[in-house]
Amino acid sequence: MTIADVARHANVSRQTVSNVLNSPEVVKEETRQRVLAAVEALGYRVSAAARQMRTGRSRLLATRIETTQDGMNVFDRFLHGLTESAAGSGYRVLLYTATDDQSEIAAFDQLLGEFEPDGFVLTSTHHGDARTSWLAERDLPFVTFGRPWGTSEAGHPWVDVDGAAGTEAATRHLLDGGHRRIGFLGWETGSGVGDDRKSGWSRTLAAGGLDTDLAMETDGTPAQGQAGARELVERGATALVCVSDSVALGALQVTPSVVGFDDTPVAAAIGLTTLGQPLAEAAARCVELLTDRLSGRPTAPHVLLTPTLVIRKDP
Amino acid sequence: MTIADVARHANVSRQTVSNVLNSPEVVKEETRQRVLAAVEALGYRVSAAARQMRTGRSRLLATRIETTQDGMNVFDRFLHGLTESAAGSGYRVLLYTATDDQSEIAAFDQLLGEFEPDGFVLTSTHHGDARTSWLAERDLPFVTFGRPWGTSEAGHPWVDVDGAAGTEAATRHLLDGGHRRIGFLGWETGSGVGDDRKSGWSRTLAAGGLDTDLAMETDGTPAQGQAGARELVERGATALVCVSDSVALGALQVTPSVVGFDDTPVAAAIGLTTLGQPLAEAAARCVELLTDRLSGRPTAPHVLLTPTLVIRKDP
Repeated sequence: MTIADVARHANVSRQTVSNVLNSPEVVKEETRQRVLAAVEALGYRVSAAARQMRTGRSRLLATRIETTQDGMNVFDRFLHGLTESAAGSGYRVLLYTATDDQSEIAAFDQLLGEFEPDGFVLTSTHHGDARTSWLAERDLPFVTFGRPWGTSEAGHPWVDVDGAAGTEAATRHLLDGGHRRIGFLGWETGSGVGDDRKSGWSRTLAAGGLDTDLAMETDGTPAQGQAGARELVERGATALVCVSDSVALGALQVTPSVVGFDDTPVAAAIGLTTLGQPLAEAAARCVELLTDRLSGRPTAPHVLLTPTLVIRKDP
Repeated sequence: MTIADVARHANVSRQTVSNVLNSPEVVKEETRQRVLAAVEALGYRVSAAARQMRTGRSRLLATRIETTQDGMNVFDRFLHGLTESAAGSGYRVLLYTATDDQSEIAAFDQLLGEFEPDGFVLTSTHHGDARTSWLAERDLPFVTFGRPWGTSEAGHPWVDVDGAAGTEAATRHLLDGGHRRIGFLGWETGSGVGDDRKSGWSRTLAAGGLDTDLAMETDGTPAQGQAGARELVERGATALVCVSDSVALGALQVTPSVVGFDDTPVAAAIGLTTLGQPLAEAAARCVELLTDRLSGRPTAPHVLLTPTLVIRKDP
C-alpha cells in the first residue's frame, strides 16, 4: 500500500496526499477529509515520520541508563518497568548515557534536536539539580523518580519511595528482636536520599526514648561499611540499620543483625534482610504522571510509595 | 529559526521548503540546492521527522530489555555499552519487552509500523530461534549478541563470547591448583550456551588424560547448584566448574574450590572466582556490525570474543 494507491482512491495527486500527511495546513479541509478517508479505507499505515510531523509527537520518552558497576542499584529493574508501562501507553523508551548534570543537559539538547522525545524521565535527583531547572525553564515535559530535594520547589511531577518509612520499619524490626543499642551506617550528610533514610532510624529510636548517638558516615562501599560496623559495635551497638545493601554487606562481616536497603540481588543471594522498593509501580506512576501531562489530563503532583521490609532471618 | 525564515532566505514558498524536506522528488534539483544552502546558511535544525522522511532513516536501534529477576545476568551491562556505542555512531537505543520468540516478533512488527527502527540488536539466541528467521526473511538489518546455535546457518552478523575458552581457563586454573577430580555443574543439555561452556571443561580434562564423568545438569538455581555439588563431591570431586555464578553460589555452600561464569555483582560481593565477559566490547562490536551493514560498508561476518578469568582466591 503506497501513497500512489491512496491518491488514486481519493482522486487527488500524490503531492496532495503528501501534503495531507506532512503539511495539512496547506490542504483544503474537504480534500483533507477525502484523503484521510482513503487512508482509512485502504488501511494505509502512516509512517512514524509522517505521523510525527502531523501530530508533533514522537511517542518517545527519554531516560538515562545508569552505570551499574557494582550491581547494587535498582535502576535496571526500574527501567524494565518503565519500558513495559510506556508500551502500555503507546510510548517507547529511548536511552542515553551521561556522567553528570552538565553532560545530561547536553544529551537533552542533542536528543531534542535529533529525536524530539515527548518527555524525559529523570532518576537520581539531588540537591542543586541543574537538570530539572533546565527542563523547567524550557517548559519541557518531564517527571523525576526521586523528590526535588530542595531544588525546583515550584514543583514538577515526581514519584519517590519513602526511605524514612523504610528505615523506621527496619528499626522497629530490630527493636522487636530485643535490640536496644541500634546503630546507623549512612552516607555523607547532604545526600537527600541518605539523610531521609537516616531520619527514619533516628525518629524511631527517639520515639522509644533511646539514644541516637550510634551513627556513622561511609562512602557507600562494603569496606567502609565493615569499618564503620566495627566501630559502632565497639561502642555498644548490637544491631545496625544500613543506608544500602552495599554498606550492609560489609557490616555483615562484623555482626549478623543487619538490615540493608534496596533488596538487590546480592541481598537475596546472601540472605540479607533489607527494604524492597516497589520499582514496577514507581515506573508505572512515572509514566502515568508524564503521559497525563502530555495529554493535558489533570494529574497528581507527586506520588510517594512505601518500601517493604524483606525479612530473611531473625533480627 | 523556522521554515518561513528558510523560505524567505531562499526566495521560495514555505510549501517548497516543506517539499524539499519531505518530498524532495517533486522539487527541481536547482531549487532543492538553493533551499538546502539556505538551511545550512541559517543553521536551521531539521526536525527528526523531516530528516527521517528525507533519508528513510530513524537512527534508532531497537533491543529487548530482559527481566533481571535474580540479577545474575549480564544484560544491564551490555545495554549500557550498547547505548554508549550507538550514540558514538549517531544512533539511539529504543527498548521493548517480550516474554518469548512470538511476543518478540509481535514487538518487531509493531515497532516497524510505529517507530521504524533502522535495525535490531537481539540477545539470548537459541536453537530454533524464530526471531532471526523472521527478520532474515524480510531482509531487515539485525545483529545478535550470541551465536546462531544451528539456526539460520545461512549467516547473519553476530558477536559472541567464547564460553568454551572460558571454562577451559577455569579448568586449567583448578588443575594448576593441584585438583585432578574436577566436576562440572551445567544446565540441561540442548542449550547452546550451556553445551558450549561444558565442552571447554571436558576437552581440557580429556587433553590431560583425566576423567570427564563428574558432570551434572541443574535448572540454574543456587538450590540445584548446591544439591549437584553435594552429589559430585560424594562421587570424589574436589573442585567444580559451574555454568553460571548462580549455580556456583549454591556449590560454594558445599566446597570452596568453585569457579563461576559471568562475573556478576554477586560474585564480586562474595569473592567468587569467575569468568568475566567483555560486555562493553561486545556491545561496541554489535553496533559496528549493524551500522556497517546500514551504511553498506563491508564488515566482518561475526566476532568471537574471549572471556577473562577473574581470580578472587586460591584454587
